[in-house]
Amino acid sequence: MYATVLHGPRDIRYEQVEDPKILLPTDAIIQLSATCICGSDLWPYRGLQPQDRPLHMGHEYCGTVIEVGSDVRTVRPGQFVVGSFCLSDNTCPHCRFGFQSSCMQGEFMSGAQAPFARVALADGTLVATEHMPDPAMIPHMLAVSDVLGTGWYGAAAAQVRAGGTVVVVGDGAVGLMGILAASQMGAGRIIAMSRHEPRQRLAQEFGATDIVAERGEDGIARIMDMTDGVGAESVLECVGLAESMQQAMGVCRPGGTIGYVGVPHGVALEGRQMFFRQQRMLGGPAPVRRFLPDLMDRVLLGKIHPGRVFDLSLPIAEVAEGYKAMDERRAIKTILTV
Amino acid sequence: MYATVLHGPRDIRYEQVEDPKILLPTDAIIQLSATCICGSDLWPYRGLQPQDRPLHMGHEYCGTVIEVGSDVRTVRPGQFVVGSFCLSDNTCPHCRFGFQSSCMQGEFMSGAQAPFARVALADGTLVATEHMPDPAMIPHMLAVSDVLGTGWYGAAAAQVRAGGTVVVVGDGAVGLMGILAASQMGAGRIIAMSRHEPRQRLAQEFGATDIVAERGEDGIARIMDMTDGVGAESVLECVGLAESMQQAMGVCRPGGTIGYVGVPHGVALEGRQMFFRQQRMLGGPAPVRRFLPDLMDRVLLGKIHPGRVFDLSLPIAEVAEGYKAMDERRAIKTILTV
Repeated sequence: MYATVLHGPRDIRYEQVEDPKILLPTDAIIQLSATCICGSDLWPYRGLQPQDRPLHMGHEYCGTVIEVGSDVRTVRPGQFVVGSFCLSDNTCPHCRFGFQSSCMQGEFMSGAQAPFARVALADGTLVATEHMPDPAMIPHMLAVSDVLGTGWYGAAAAQVRAGGTVVVVGDGAVGLMGILAASQMGAGRIIAMSRHEPRQRLAQEFGATDIVAERGEDGIARIMDMTDGVGAESVLECVGLAESMQQAMGVCRPGGTIGYVGVPHGVALEGRQMFFRQQRMLGGPAPVRRFLPDLMDRVLLGKIHPGRVFDLSLPIAEVAEGYKAMDERRAIKTILTV
Repeated sequence: MYATVLHGPRDIRYEQVEDPKILLPTDAIIQLSATCICGSDLWPYRGLQPQDRPLHMGHEYCGTVIEVGSDVRTVRPGQFVVGSFCLSDNTCPHCRFGFQSSCMQGEFMSGAQAPFARVALADGTLVATEHMPDPAMIPHMLAVSDVLGTGWYGAAAAQVRAGGTVVVVGDGAVGLMGILAASQMGAGRIIAMSRHEPRQRLAQEFGATDIVAERGEDGIARIMDMTDGVGAESVLECVGLAESMQQAMGVCRPGGTIGYVGVPHGVALEGRQMFFRQQRMLGGPAPVRRFLPDLMDRVLLGKIHPGRVFDLSLPIAEVAEGYKAMDERRAIKTILTV
């Protein structure tokens, strides 16, 4: 088959590779309904993550099971499934504690920007629907796999509660999904930090009640002013840079919580600053598996439409243009049809 | 009166100072029943905290109100009171959120290693008992003011729950009080990291179920082994050094929580390490005021005996020896009679 392979900075190719096959009895092979490009794919694309060999890209997926290993019990060929970008057995102590992204035998999904993909630990990772969903549902179901699940985890980690005040730092796809999550959790006020007009509109559509376009110290001052000098009780850090983390810390009230889901790049925290700010912090790769059944239900019941975060759709053969558009910020997130 | 003044590294004097007096209508003056030396007093004593003027030492206190400012409503002369080392109005948004140690007009107590002391923000800071407590209760009531309150906050911040597994890093007075707190909160297993035999005994008396004498990588390996490779769900960091924080992070399970109450000295955290370890963290100066009424009740009902943490008692005139004994680790914590 053809699949997406990154050979080096900005050298992304849709090229012939070996067909995926069952390697372990716990594997499944799925035929993808659609796939997409993640903000985190841009780190290696931009050469900001060292790479010593070609990388088979893609970790967001949904589709139809076509083959399963001999040990697989919970899914069978013909079923429509969604899985997390973190593969997990869902039985180890960390999984049972709700942190499947730290599964003791976990690994990260790869190779999903392709028509077919191997999913390891299929029983623990995949969740099947009762029926084959309507094609119009595919973008929304695909979003659950990572971008919505990650935004949702950001809101859960930030302990968003009904009526609470929330700040979302970052207007990328994950930040926008964090807004949707906070809204679903009943937050009273959701302040989106966003400078880009199309993203501001989408933020409002997903539930943002306020937009702050300022950044840095100005942005912090603005939000402190809006919250009567108190700050927000829940802050979602959805970028992963030192500046965005400082922004998050600058607007979180003492005793409030920062959920950080942007993979940190060059973030260092000073212990004494953390101590005296007295903010709860929890971050990490999202344990999407914990939220999957609930989020898939919300999608299928038409309660949420997370697939609206895709503002560019391309045939997978044009995947290189999808990366380029996101790299140049012409697109928030690219869905690839297969 | 005479009081305790630090003039420079290891130069602690009990010398004549001005009597404390009401400066603001929200002040109270108390006559101390006893006072004590805090582990945090050793930082400036050891010259590890820059000092540009003589420091009036002491922030742990209980005693009898002898005078109040004209605005004070909740306490009156003749009452026995305990207050937090963090002075707070207990009415601002941060106080009402339970984080009185981040009170918008808060300040830190000082000058309490003396027979009399001024307590600012008396209404918000002091809690009076119904009756004058028995003299035998004084050490236990005094401990509530900071050392127990801080250990308690460490356990609360670490989200200790009934039946849970807890690790306490640090066998100083705060660590020992953290053990007591975790035990009161119903922890199922409390692993104390302690190398010193007398402290190990006290740790067990306060509720530790296991003692680990190893430190660093060996200590981490030992605890991971004891917890079947999982780690603890609640970890109390009660030291404040880079090594102790690494120890805490090394034994906390993903999704577990680290409560850090040792004031960080030279602690820097790498964002990506924090992210992938996926541990919740909350630290800061303890909002003791939140816990005061409950902790004072527990003491008065004889449920807890936190004053057992004092293993050296000296007349306040010998305060210099009290510092020396703690500096040389001959004493865990010194109580000063006035």
